[in-house]
Amino acid sequence: MTHPKTTGHIALVGAGPGARDLLTLRALERIRAADVLLYDRLVDPAIMELAPSGTERIYVGKDVGACKWPQGRIDRLIVAKAKLGLRVVRLKSGDPSIFGRACEEIAAARAAGIEVEIVPGITAASAAAASIGRPLTERGETDTFVITTGTCKPGDAAPDRARLAHPGTSMAFYMAVERVAQVQADLMDAGAPAACPVEIVTRASTRHERHVATTLGALSKTIAAEGIANPAILFIRYPKSLARALASTGAVIAA
Amino acid sequence: MTHPKTTGHIALVGAGPGARDLLTLRALERIRAADVLLYDRLVDPAIMELAPSGTERIYVGKDVGACKWPQGRIDRLIVAKAKLGLRVVRLKSGDPSIFGRACEEIAAARAAGIEVEIVPGITAASAAAASIGRPLTERGETDTFVITTGTCKPGDAAPDRARLAHPGTSMAFYMAVERVAQVQADLMDAGAPAACPVEIVTRASTRHERHVATTLGALSKTIAAEGIANPAILFIRYPKSLARALASTGAVIAA
Repeated sequence: MTHPKTTGHIALVGAGPGARDLLTLRALERIRAADVLLYDRLVDPAIMELAPSGTERIYVGKDVGACKWPQGRIDRLIVAKAKLGLRVVRLKSGDPSIFGRACEEIAAARAAGIEVEIVPGITAASAAAASIGRPLTERGETDTFVITTGTCKPGDAAPDRARLAHPGTSMAFYMAVERVAQVQADLMDAGAPAACPVEIVTRASTRHERHVATTLGALSKTIAAEGIANPAILFIRYPKSLARALASTGAVIAA
Repeated sequence: MTHPKTTGHIALVGAGPGARDLLTLRALERIRAADVLLYDRLVDPAIMELAPSGTERIYVGKDVGACKWPQGRIDRLIVAKAKLGLRVVRLKSGDPSIFGRACEEIAAARAAGIEVEIVPGITAASAAAASIGRPLTERGETDTFVITTGTCKPGDAAPDRARLAHPGTSMAFYMAVERVAQVQADLMDAGAPAACPVEIVTRASTRHERHVATTLGALSKTIAAEGIANPAILFIRYPKSLARALASTGAVIAA
């Protein structure tokens, strides 16, 4: 697909989890062809360097002591730039389709009659799994993989986590470090065993990546003791074999 | 990371959903440096062309009239090749961490003392969402995204789908076309409304991609009428606003 300069175009481009070489070839092509690049603090500076020197760069993230751009302001800006006939690239960390607030920008572009596309990216959970060498699903152990978040739209109820506490489920919590006590309590109250293995991966795929292994029962304490902060993935597994092992232990105790 | 020829190495490389430009830069690098490339029918021929002409190519997928390679045979082959000091790339469609059977190959490599890595890839659900311009999560509408499958290890119980029938959930079913009647019945029996929107995307990101929109209540009939076959993603959403709208209708009827 080519985008002649005379027609404005908006691409919501997945910048991936951090490492520059986890960009897709399509993302690289869009960045190299960009007239305007919008980015936030989660996008690695190494990725910004891929754009031509003449590309206008606009930081729309949170500055120290300043407020984050409201979504509506970003929506208006990308539309205004595209209306000038420019190729606008809105970089989003990870995959724009997963907790990327892409809907608002797509709606704004469509309302203005501007062509808009999503370029998928590697989401943080995939990068975390690759880094620790542990897949997100394991045949015979986990058949359902859930991506959910610790933080919701203000005023919304938190996601119902009780239904996730089920053998055969693996879960990646995004942006959940500050709500970790609630996540742990919700899952355990619903029957997830304290022994469920948990891998915490912060800043997956970057040179600041860190990996801590713990269990569901020790999760809050581990987060506090290790001083873990967002962006982090909490990768919590409830393998079928753990459920079977606990059931057989329970049977012995009951007998 | 460099892999000198004298040390064998195994990379489980995500080939992405199909389109060559949805490979990551790291995947491209591994393919270009491969001495041996193992692939199956889901990997696009255009991706195979990226390997040097001297690379040994081994097809481990299902041939017409022949059986698929058993997993153990693949495990033994990648280890044997790496022990010769070769750089082995096992290409897997999508992301090796999601329904990629990566565990077995990682375990075989580790047991043999061979360095093994996962190179993440774009999973089919992300590509499908990008193609249809509809994110997998929508702020205020869906806060939990579930990837699950229609087919399990033989002898295993099917995933418990009842708990997925919950407002705020979006679901991507992989390889579920043949079980679609059961998926539809399980979700509706658990309370998911017939009006839940469904997008069916076959062969996402390839030139054979096809997109059909339907509803949960009409899903089986649509699959049959349209002659849809795997590989397909069934992207089923239960938005919070749909739950609210149905609740208010119910209230009016009850009053």
